[in-house]
Amino acid sequence: VESKQLNKGKIFNDPVYGFISVNDDLLFDIIEHPYFQRLRRIKQLGLTHMVYPGALHTRFHHAMGAMFLMGEAIEVLRSKGNEITDEEAQAVNIAILLHDIGHGPYSHALENCIVYDLSHELLSRIFMDRLNEHFKGKLHLAIEIFRNKYRKKFLHQLVSSQLDVDRLDYLKRDSFFTGVSEGVISTERIIKMMNVVNDNLVIEAKGIYSIEKFIIARRLMYWQVYLHKTVLAAEYLLVKILQRARSLADKKVKLFCTHALQEFLYHKHSVLDFEKKPSLLNTFSKLDDYDIFTSVKEWSNHPDLILSTLCSNLVNRHLFHTELQNRPFSEKQIGEMRKKVTAKIKCRMSDASYFVFSGKVENFAYSIQDAKINILLKDGSTLDIAEASDQLDVSALTKTVTKYFLCCPKNLF
Amino acid sequence: VESKQLNKGKIFNDPVYGFISVNDDLLFDIIEHPYFQRLRRIKQLGLTHMVYPGALHTRFHHAMGAMFLMGEAIEVLRSKGNEITDEEAQAVNIAILLHDIGHGPYSHALENCIVYDLSHELLSRIFMDRLNEHFKGKLHLAIEIFRNKYRKKFLHQLVSSQLDVDRLDYLKRDSFFTGVSEGVISTERIIKMMNVVNDNLVIEAKGIYSIEKFIIARRLMYWQVYLHKTVLAAEYLLVKILQRARSLADKKVKLFCTHALQEFLYHKHSVLDFEKKPSLLNTFSKLDDYDIFTSVKEWSNHPDLILSTLCSNLVNRHLFHTELQNRPFSEKQIGEMRKKVTAKIKCRMSDASYFVFSGKVENFAYSIQDAKINILLKDGSTLDIAEASDQLDVSALTKTVTKYFLCCPKNLF
Amino acid sequence: VESKQLNKGKIFNDPVYGFISVNDDLLFDIIEHPYFQRLRRIKQLGLTHMVYPGALHTRFHHAMGAMFLMGEAIEVLRSKGNEITDEEAQAVNIAILLHDIGHGPYSHALENCIVYDLSHELLSRIFMDRLNEHFKGKLHLAIEIFRNKYRKKFLHQLVSSQLDVDRLDYLKRDSFFTGVSEGVISTERIIKMMNVVNDNLVIEAKGIYSIEKFIIARRLMYWQVYLHKTVLAAEYLLVKILQRARSLADKKVKLFCTHALQEFLYHKHSVLDFEKKPSLLNTFSKLDDYDIFTSVKEWSNHPDLILSTLCSNLVNRHLFHTELQNRPFSEKQIGEMRKKVTAKIKCRMSDASYFVFSGKVENFAYSIQDAKINILLKDGSTLDIAEASDQLDVSALTKTVTKYFLCCPKNLF
Amino acid sequence: VESKQLNKGKIFNDPVYGFISVNDDLLFDIIEHPYFQRLRRIKQLGLTHMVYPGALHTRFHHAMGAMFLMGEAIEVLRSKGNEITDEEAQAVNIAILLHDIGHGPYSHALENCIVYDLSHELLSRIFMDRLNEHFKGKLHLAIEIFRNKYRKKFLHQLVSSQLDVDRLDYLKRDSFFTGVSEGVISTERIIKMMNVVNDNLVIEAKGIYSIEKFIIARRLMYWQVYLHKTVLAAEYLLVKILQRARSLADKKVKLFCTHALQEFLYHKHSVLDFEKKPSLLNTFSKLDDYDIFTSVKEWSNHPDLILSTLCSNLVNRHLFHTELQNRPFSEKQIGEMRKKVTAKIKCRMSDASYFVFSGKVENFAYSIQDAKINILLKDGSTLDIAEASDQLDVSALTKTVTKYFLCCPKNLF
Repeated sequence: VESKQLNKGKIFNDPVYGFISVNDDLLFDIIEHPYFQRLRRIKQLGLTHMVYPGALHTRFHHAMGAMFLMGEAIEVLRSKGNEITDEEAQAVNIAILLHDIGHGPYSHALENCIVYDLSHELLSRIFMDRLNEHFKGKLHLAIEIFRNKYRKKFLHQLVSSQLDVDRLDYLKRDSFFTGVSEGVISTERIIKMMNVVNDNLVIEAKGIYSIEKFIIARRLMYWQVYLHKTVLAAEYLLVKILQRARSLADKKVKLFCTHALQEFLYHKHSVLDFEKKPSLLNTFSKLDDYDIFTSVKEWSNHPDLILSTLCSNLVNRHLFHTELQNRPFSEKQIGEMRKKVTAKIKCRMSDASYFVFSGKVENFAYSIQDAKINILLKDGSTLDIAEASDQLDVSALTKTVTKYFLCCPKNLF
Repeated sequence: VESKQLNKGKIFNDPVYGFISVNDDLLFDIIEHPYFQRLRRIKQLGLTHMVYPGALHTRFHHAMGAMFLMGEAIEVLRSKGNEITDEEAQAVNIAILLHDIGHGPYSHALENCIVYDLSHELLSRIFMDRLNEHFKGKLHLAIEIFRNKYRKKFLHQLVSSQLDVDRLDYLKRDSFFTGVSEGVISTERIIKMMNVVNDNLVIEAKGIYSIEKFIIARRLMYWQVYLHKTVLAAEYLLVKILQRARSLADKKVKLFCTHALQEFLYHKHSVLDFEKKPSLLNTFSKLDDYDIFTSVKEWSNHPDLILSTLCSNLVNRHLFHTELQNRPFSEKQIGEMRKKVTAKIKCRMSDASYFVFSGKVENFAYSIQDAKINILLKDGSTLDIAEASDQLDVSALTKTVTKYFLCCPKNLF
Repeated sequence: VESKQLNKGKIFNDPVYGFISVNDDLLFDIIEHPYFQRLRRIKQLGLTHMVYPGALHTRFHHAMGAMFLMGEAIEVLRSKGNEITDEEAQAVNIAILLHDIGHGPYSHALENCIVYDLSHELLSRIFMDRLNEHFKGKLHLAIEIFRNKYRKKFLHQLVSSQLDVDRLDYLKRDSFFTGVSEGVISTERIIKMMNVVNDNLVIEAKGIYSIEKFIIARRLMYWQVYLHKTVLAAEYLLVKILQRARSLADKKVKLFCTHALQEFLYHKHSVLDFEKKPSLLNTFSKLDDYDIFTSVKEWSNHPDLILSTLCSNLVNRHLFHTELQNRPFSEKQIGEMRKKVTAKIKCRMSDASYFVFSGKVENFAYSIQDAKINILLKDGSTLDIAEASDQLDVSALTKTVTKYFLCCPKNLF
Repeated sequence: VESKQLNKGKIFNDPVYGFISVNDDLLFDIIEHPYFQRLRRIKQLGLTHMVYPGALHTRFHHAMGAMFLMGEAIEVLRSKGNEITDEEAQAVNIAILLHDIGHGPYSHALENCIVYDLSHELLSRIFMDRLNEHFKGKLHLAIEIFRNKYRKKFLHQLVSSQLDVDRLDYLKRDSFFTGVSEGVISTERIIKMMNVVNDNLVIEAKGIYSIEKFIIARRLMYWQVYLHKTVLAAEYLLVKILQRARSLADKKVKLFCTHALQEFLYHKHSVLDFEKKPSLLNTFSKLDDYDIFTSVKEWSNHPDLILSTLCSNLVNRHLFHTELQNRPFSEKQIGEMRKKVTAKIKCRMSDASYFVFSGKVENFAYSIQDAKINILLKDGSTLDIAEASDQLDVSALTKTVTKYFLCCPKNLF
């Protein structure tokens, strides 16, 4: 009884929206759960703060913000006569709150070094099922909506589509904390234009320019922030560190580790292991940014020169030089650089790939395969934004833009 | 001597940039001149405040803001090694300060009712020449830059091109005061990317996404604000009012008028008149929003029913219903509506065009004819943004978008 | 039927709060009424824009903003278990919408030149009663609340007290448009802290620092904006103009006037006249900033030299020099300056008071007489902020600060 | 040579000011030094993010911001004719950049558990001297200014006084990231009002209201953020954890530790040690938030129940219940609560103080002992703000406000 009173009207401070109120006890109890609280220790943008020093905001804050926008969207849709029951509203709020629960620390970097056939999406499902057990089945509807099994499809689209509240929040929040003011979108205006037609989330016609701007702003954030070449340099440096650590761990070399990191660095866990051994999820849930970065700091004194060099480079922000171009880098060019590196750093040719490597990044502004952004015209019909816009050329819009990067030590160029 | 001290460090408050400092005596004296002070009484966006109630900012404030951005641009360009002498800096500041000096009140509506073969550009020139006389030739260089006669072309481009500080300020300022947050552009980021190559203003390559966003934001402001159909309805209502007033004036019907409005409503002045009779410019300089709107208010009691109906509609915000479509409205449709109007309002068919009329508005996001926006690539070459961007399709970008509108009384549809 | 549909979900753009929705038909119809629409043509801050060029916002916008905050307050109070019926909510919204309906143009300047024993408060009542007739008694409850006759006193306190939504909006709005960022208050945080105890509006204890800051911000806005000496100079110049115009009108001298201004300049109407002659209110409702300023512009060519000098000074922003000090200016000092003026401007000594005059302005941060700001302590008791704050000393807080000003032509000092 | 080119025009992104440019090579090299880069891993506000989730900004970002404001202040002071040579400008920039270099992680919590007779001020001096050696004496003037040994005292006041750019930045930055908008101060306006009189930094008279607001805003931030009772609960929980860890370390109990933390947890280093053993500063410089919080996470599984309980409480945000009052809590009350705790947690009475404890926090708005805030009156004289303000009562202002807190487990009350 007392706890209920405590929960009532719980308010979170948020520099982006002012205040985020949580008036639902179940929602509040989920937020209080250690599985969710761990998101307080996982930065939304990994190592981006090395380029944008303000970008330290966490997945916790993003999930709370997305839930705030969901509340706004529910209010708008209801005011336009679309039925959303209280139970559905609670469920869709839970679904958005937990949409990223499966993310580990620096997940873009870690997904292939720490966990294997386990995407963060899959881990999210495992977390949700476990929480559903814990909360005695009360998350059932939320999970149905999340997996798009529920009959009202528009609820899923609010959680996951090309115009979901997830994107609306992260673009706005990432803009705010990076200071890239051009990424700012008017979430309020977009949400005001939402409606539902034939069980599909649509945007009313006069919102078309806002949507165009949303697509362009998202694209800008991709190239200016998410795929910024120095951000890539930092993230790939961490990938290389973890690859090296893993290869040492495979050879049973001792490495400073927290208990949780030890479990995942010295074993190769697959989804089956999570099913067989329920405690494994608990161990995974202990992993956060602190485990990884503390280890990196300690490893900068490790006897393995490759590991220690990579680590002290990251700690002291001696990031790779990165070239970005529209075509792949030739094997020959990469090979020559690696040769130079072996001379300079005195490592074997087989280890030169820790210091000189290439890869690619891709981005498209808008996908025609995924759940589309539908514009509700005045005559009641709907049209894909790619067709409704007379500015954004459909072929340009949906074309995947691929850029190739080459990372190498700074003094090599 | 004393006045110099007074001038020093004169600061203007501006909610957009915080403070605007004017440290140059000549600039300050121009600002103090009645020709410039009159811009305090001419709203930047005419009747837009009828839809966006905050949009009451003046041409004075915009000119000051553009001058502020010019100062930022000069600082950036100089810091990159481009020579701009103090004399040139003063001149280019004067040029931007006076770039819109020729605007009359509600100029989009008035340009064909009050002055005739006189565009605001032409009037700006006349004002500048007169001020140059007054200030004993000290505006000579500013005028040369304004007219693109000066050898350093990039100075003119700062004043007038597709990425001049005029546009940078008005987009940002109009966004601010309308509250259309999506029009917000990062003027600071764009200016930081400016440079000069071969006497051409260019934007450094990493600013490409900001430029894309600038173009899209500008487009958004066009359709969401400048060409908003209710804004059009208000402005065309004022056009119709002035047409009617003019036709009555031509018949020597007496109309409430200020002295200055009288001069231009009862005579048809051309550019020659301004040359022959220097005092005419002074009379023109007395005209501002107050003259026009006060007359409209008074005319709402005028015995001419067409005039009084139109006027009281504007005063009480009974604006036309406006339809917008991609093809012209048929003569037949317009004719039928006019017939209905004559029945309803009891006017002659020949006067029905005051209440039912059609027209078109055009907009293009980017022009390939005008001074281009050049992107400075890493290899030192430059490329038109239309080609440099892999998103903004050149054909879509430069295509003129034409929309046709039909205005008619609200209860007619 | 159709009009109802039109009204539904009517949205106003506002750069301060984003959007202001009006979902109530009666509210919307009141907004549409010419009596309310006229507030679109009356600037909230009179001539303040002469110092803060952005301060052009209108009483219309302020009333809409205050209504927005009222909606927020109602939601917060209801969520804390305080009953506010739908009828009461509508009424308190109407009350705040109309709280300033009686203001004329530049009302601080005009209140003693245009209307006599008629404060804007009294005129507000007259307007409300007339609107109540027009809307067939539907404003009855709103008027009761406005006049503090309704049994739930806290509703009146929301409309009018030392922490009403009127002040919350105007401080925030005036800060926004002047650009004096220090006046910014967190309306959201203050409203979140509102509650009702014993039918009194209270602020919960943890809001105490916000209230302190609100009081200091209000004080800052007073001295920095509302009583800024150049703003005073402009407003008193207008007072002098209208005094002169009135004295000429009393002598039947012909003056350019709109129909509405004529009525009030050439007659001396008292409250009785408004009762006897209902059309007088309509005439008054035609008066707005346009009538006054257009006349000032025209009068700058009037044969009466005193009038024309004063008027062209205002139009060209040649404002008085203003001295501000803590004690009255001596009669001797004023007399000497007037003597100088007669020599300089060649006017009679009896008219020198148009150019050299003194007066006083007063301000107190917080009144202990007026409806107090009550803080709700944790133990359930309430305390006046003046006692609850350990910072703001009660004697300093409630002391009236009086400053004396002396205005004279600039070149006289 | 190449590195110089690289340094030129280095720009840092900052959501608070937009961009922070560093055009000086020495400044840039100091920023690049590992001693300074470590500030990227030390949060400005320690555990405040547990209450204000956005408050994750670092001491690095604050130091950069303060340097930005220093640049603004230098420009303003120079423009008013105060001489600041280029060498002095560089030095004062270095001084502000390094003013907090001695801070360790969670320094408020750690200052008495990890380092002993070593305040962060003392450590700052040690760091500066070491950096001065490294940069071959180039920091000499900066250190003189920092220690107030330089003849131009106003330069020191810019770095450290009651209105230094340190405070201006941290108030603004902390407001921004916490979202407590009421803490926002207008740094721009305050800096514009700065001047120097008799080698003292002063604020021009018309800035008095801004200063009043600055003092009130600072006070508000103290009680609303810095001394927020849940923030205190979190910080004192960390203090108790480190006290317990230290007492276990003293008994040679093994604890998970990074290399750097080990050094300071298992030894008691004093200032003498830093002098005798230069490498100790390097070891200290490895310590950051990651070392501490990772250990706390690991210790939550430590066999010592007191340590593990405290740690898992912090990790899962089960913070103490905190009472705040104006008088001390009685020994009796505390004793009784400790008894309850021993029963509940099953610890010895001697260990109950880890779970139930009291203390006090103090704050004063303005100090009359410290370097005063001087107001420059129009007659050229200066006055302490405490006397110049007619609002802020001097006795109230300078009174130390003391509050007593009592922390205990939540379910105990």
